Amino acid sequence: MDTAELTELGQQLRVDSVRASAAAGSGHPTSSMSAADLMAVLLAHHLRYDFDRPAHPGNDRFVLSKGHASPLLYSAYKAAGAVDDEELLTFRKLGSRLEGHPTPQRLPWVETATGSLGQGLPVGVGISLAGKRLDRADYRVWVLCGDSELAEGSVWEAAEHAGHEHLDNLTAIVDVNRLGQRGPTRHGHDLDAYARRFQAFGWHTVEIDGHDVDAIDRAYGEAISTKGQPTAILARTLKGKGVESVQDREGLHGKPLPHADEAIEELGGPRDLRVQVHAPAETRMLHSVPTGHLDLPRWEKGEEAATRDAYGQALAALGTARGDVVALDGEVSDSTRAEAFAKEHPDRFFECYIAEQQLVAAAVGLATRGWVPYASTFAAFLTRAYDFVRMASISGAGINLVGSHAGVSIGQDGPSQMGLEDLAMFRAVHGSTVLYPCDPNQTARLVTAMAGLDGVRYLRTSRGAGPVIYGPDEEFPVGGSKVLRSSDRDRMTIVAAGVTVHEALRAADALAGEGIAVRVVDLYSVKPVDRATLRSAAEETGLLLSVEDHHEQGGLGDAVLDAFLDGRPMPRLVRLAVRTMPGSASPAEQLHAAGIDAESIAASARLLVEQAIAP
Amino acid sequence: MDTAELTELGQQLRVDSVRASAAAGSGHPTSSMSAADLMAVLLAHHLRYDFDRPAHPGNDRFVLSKGHASPLLYSAYKAAGAVDDEELLTFRKLGSRLEGHPTPQRLPWVETATGSLGQGLPVGVGISLAGKRLDRADYRVWVLCGDSELAEGSVWEAAEHAGHEHLDNLTAIVDVNRLGQRGPTRHGHDLDAYARRFQAFGWHTVEIDGHDVDAIDRAYGEAISTKGQPTAILARTLKGKGVESVQDREGLHGKPLPHADEAIEELGGPRDLRVQVHAPAETRMLHSVPTGHLDLPRWEKGEEAATRDAYGQALAALGTARGDVVALDGEVSDSTRAEAFAKEHPDRFFECYIAEQQLVAAAVGLATRGWVPYASTFAAFLTRAYDFVRMASISGAGINLVGSHAGVSIGQDGPSQMGLEDLAMFRAVHGSTVLYPCDPNQTARLVTAMAGLDGVRYLRTSRGAGPVIYGPDEEFPVGGSKVLRSSDRDRMTIVAAGVTVHEALRAADALAGEGIAVRVVDLYSVKPVDRATLRSAAEETGLLLSVEDHHEQGGLGDAVLDAFLDGRPMPRLVRLAVRTMPGSASPAEQLHAAGIDAESIAASARLLVEQAIAP
Repeated sequence: MDTAELTELGQQLRVDSVRASAAAGSGHPTSSMSAADLMAVLLAHHLRYDFDRPAHPGNDRFVLSKGHASPLLYSAYKAAGAVDDEELLTFRKLGSRLEGHPTPQRLPWVETATGSLGQGLPVGVGISLAGKRLDRADYRVWVLCGDSELAEGSVWEAAEHAGHEHLDNLTAIVDVNRLGQRGPTRHGHDLDAYARRFQAFGWHTVEIDGHDVDAIDRAYGEAISTKGQPTAILARTLKGKGVESVQDREGLHGKPLPHADEAIEELGGPRDLRVQVHAPAETRMLHSVPTGHLDLPRWEKGEEAATRDAYGQALAALGTARGDVVALDGEVSDSTRAEAFAKEHPDRFFECYIAEQQLVAAAVGLATRGWVPYASTFAAFLTRAYDFVRMASISGAGINLVGSHAGVSIGQDGPSQMGLEDLAMFRAVHGSTVLYPCDPNQTARLVTAMAGLDGVRYLRTSRGAGPVIYGPDEEFPVGGSKVLRSSDRDRMTIVAAGVTVHEALRAADALAGEGIAVRVVDLYSVKPVDRATLRSAAEETGLLLSVEDHHEQGGLGDAVLDAFLDGRPMPRLVRLAVRTMPGSASPAEQLHAAGIDAESIAASARLLVEQAIAP
Repeated sequence: MDTAELTELGQQLRVDSVRASAAAGSGHPTSSMSAADLMAVLLAHHLRYDFDRPAHPGNDRFVLSKGHASPLLYSAYKAAGAVDDEELLTFRKLGSRLEGHPTPQRLPWVETATGSLGQGLPVGVGISLAGKRLDRADYRVWVLCGDSELAEGSVWEAAEHAGHEHLDNLTAIVDVNRLGQRGPTRHGHDLDAYARRFQAFGWHTVEIDGHDVDAIDRAYGEAISTKGQPTAILARTLKGKGVESVQDREGLHGKPLPHADEAIEELGGPRDLRVQVHAPAETRMLHSVPTGHLDLPRWEKGEEAATRDAYGQALAALGTARGDVVALDGEVSDSTRAEAFAKEHPDRFFECYIAEQQLVAAAVGLATRGWVPYASTFAAFLTRAYDFVRMASISGAGINLVGSHAGVSIGQDGPSQMGLEDLAMFRAVHGSTVLYPCDPNQTARLVTAMAGLDGVRYLRTSRGAGPVIYGPDEEFPVGGSKVLRSSDRDRMTIVAAGVTVHEALRAADALAGEGIAVRVVDLYSVKPVDRATLRSAAEETGLLLSVEDHHEQGGLGDAVLDAFLDGRPMPRLVRLAVRTMPGSASPAEQLHAAGIDAESIAASARLLVEQAIAP
């Protein structure tokens, strides 16, 4: 296309953005209009993409980090012939694929869900890493960012990661329209301010007038030809560009244009330009995935091992068996034991340093390209990435997250290092799976099972070594549990998981010596929960006693009740959980202080029996 | 102190760090040794602090962002005469104030809990803002950072905030010891790499040898005399400095020195230097807080209003009545309605732009200085700051967080903007309070009540307008609830909060017309929960039906069960919650699709009555 045609295409994208938002009665046309020329030139001249084959391994990848500019994205889809005008006008309506913010669950051309700002670039870094280090395909990753979202620290985690990894297949296009939602940004149209920041993180930068299609064209060419560095294109634009009454004005974020018909006329009226998007180069298979025999590590009863150790060893074995398994860690792989994988499969290990948002975002990006990522850090520090986990679930991303050092049982390091909210956090994520093993063989099996699940999978591991209680050939289906002590005289059921399983067993044995029979259930699958076993336990023993190394809200106790949510009579349930703020102390002292060790469990059980609350 | 004395003091801090860690059998001596000279010079020459009066308004504020270097901090306390040697050796033991990572709950000289990296500087920015804009005292804020933690995006949110606000009372001292936990950092000893980054964000930088006490002294002087910019001092140091066998070596993070006695000897043996820390300047009161009459906004029954509108107006009124109330927002004050406060009290409003970690951290920092912060953004985006919320609870910080646009009822914007995990997230925080009003008068009262509570307080507001159902003089104690429909023929109790209260009332009225009496409880206090009312409702009506605009885990349904945690028979409970991934649709369509609107509630109630599950 020549200059005039590109300009016309930009105007068409504006008109369609205005039309779609007007039809919806909501949306972000002004944020779309500022970036319309940037999108037009990308679509017509530089993007290599087969809309009929979104899974094509050679396709470039486009991420709309400023996801609220969805009208622009959908207008571009229309210009590319991927959606028709009728569908365009279903924008934001019930049942439409064209949501307020784009999601890959509904649209095959969307790489990742956006709408929480500052996430597109971090995920784009993950995709770029896949391209460089795994797929070794020459696709490019284009991320369209807003200027407001550059205030998010996650953007600078991504900038650091991309700069350090020399991701020259990555281009950030920043639509510097100077206006955020409620008013001007910190830096207005000061492109240099942004350029200095990106340059400091090792990026090549280009500053342009974002409404000069030739300048845009040259900038994209410069990005493509820049080697060894990612490129940030800083484009000076006007919000609402092209319509005098809204252009560059405050107070018009996220609203349809006041007079859409007049605006469309001012923009030159509707057009129906079609863009023949460049095809991707024919390329080899997405990635060849060698598969082999799964030779999981084995532990024998009588040994001791920490579940974090089992995680590292099992993941390394899984990586040998499955070429599509990759691992990431947040600079604590010696603690999470992801180092075992890193040692055996250095080409598939990604060090993300202390940047948990980027850790999860990179996993999401790798997952978009078909890789099966396991990302690990301390359970406590995954709270840093909760918004990314939430958005991953909206994306439908298949990622495995592994949190080590769960609970007070880590000991002396104190509360800042203790994961005590992680079960609550992950249980509340839509479609998530939450697993919490107590034994190394169990851990190894669950690590393997995770790879085959959908959505966000979370595994909680523990710091300290515990006894091996399961044989290496035992199976642990997700959604299952294990009944470890049982008789027909059980007066209650202790439901435990992870470290508290061992405490529960010690308590049960002590109680048995006193003539008090109790059942013990290892609820390693915290979500989904084993309804049948819990219901039987409640019916047969009359009382459940849950014991968890987690705050009392949202963790194991609440998970137990997931088995009784259909209006049936609920069981009696007593909970032991971490109710006070821990300090520093040894692991055993911590468990005792929190009232979740064997002695506390036994004492609670005795009390309940004496009070005749237990049958 | 002269050069030799400062050097000796640095050695003493090293020796005491080694001794404390050896006594504990754990801890981070090598991370303490790298920063010992930096700490020695600060303590002896530049810090102005009265250890006997930690609340002194003129005290400088020191934040150990690399909280794992706690042995260094406690050794400095000893040198300053604040703790004795005996206490120093209780480090990390059960009951000791000297925890693995410092917390203000146990030590009066600690400003904020650290140990989750990348949080000290963001909180330090909040303290500096208090100094500049509120206290108008000339105290300085010194933050000792590690180099590894500069990978956290939150550090760059803080850098951006401080640069933009010209916080020349803030100094970041970066201990560039080149080694993280598991190995080298990205930038090793490349001080320029860090300097470029800080400079790009508007900071003055100084690069020094972090073991040259005279250079350190000059750098601190330069920081103090630099006007209009915060200063970052980038200090090249060696981890484990001073002990050949550990100095600058990998694999020694977070471990006591292998041969402590030899190391102490190599460091010149124990010393008992005492530092006379400079006293703070005598200053006026911390801040004079004008108080006045609280004139809350009032709504009459029959009107409609959104709880987010009530939040903004109530907060503005509270700000008029209480001079210590301040507000912060993440660039969405037009949506959260914090703009009402900003308009009336611009001197006490802090725009934090789209940087939710910094938003919460600044609130924590302001709270350390006695201010009562209210920080708002979309409920969904508070997930971005979960680690900061978690650490705020460890600090015991009194902060108010307000999440707007909760739930599917926001409508067309889609799932990325919907807070659907926020109740779970905040309920799991130790010592938190969670409030969820449905009515503007209720909102206004709760906004006021929050100010007087301890710990982390969360208020959930809604986007759309709803009917006023309470009079403006009604009271809403925290921990209470309101019974809105009740009779002695009630066959179940619908427990609702926020938007679902209105749906529940409509359902109850429809059911009443069919001869099915149901009770309706407005559970506006989600944590703590009104046990008495819920227990009575369960006893008297036999069945509870919870209805929430939140995922089913960790929200209102689980909160209801908090009333039955002592082993007493649990109620029958059926939950209606958001179980599918929403798309775009109108608010009414969303509520219907999620099965939490009046029709869905009534249908569920009928079904339960027909099945004779309801009595």
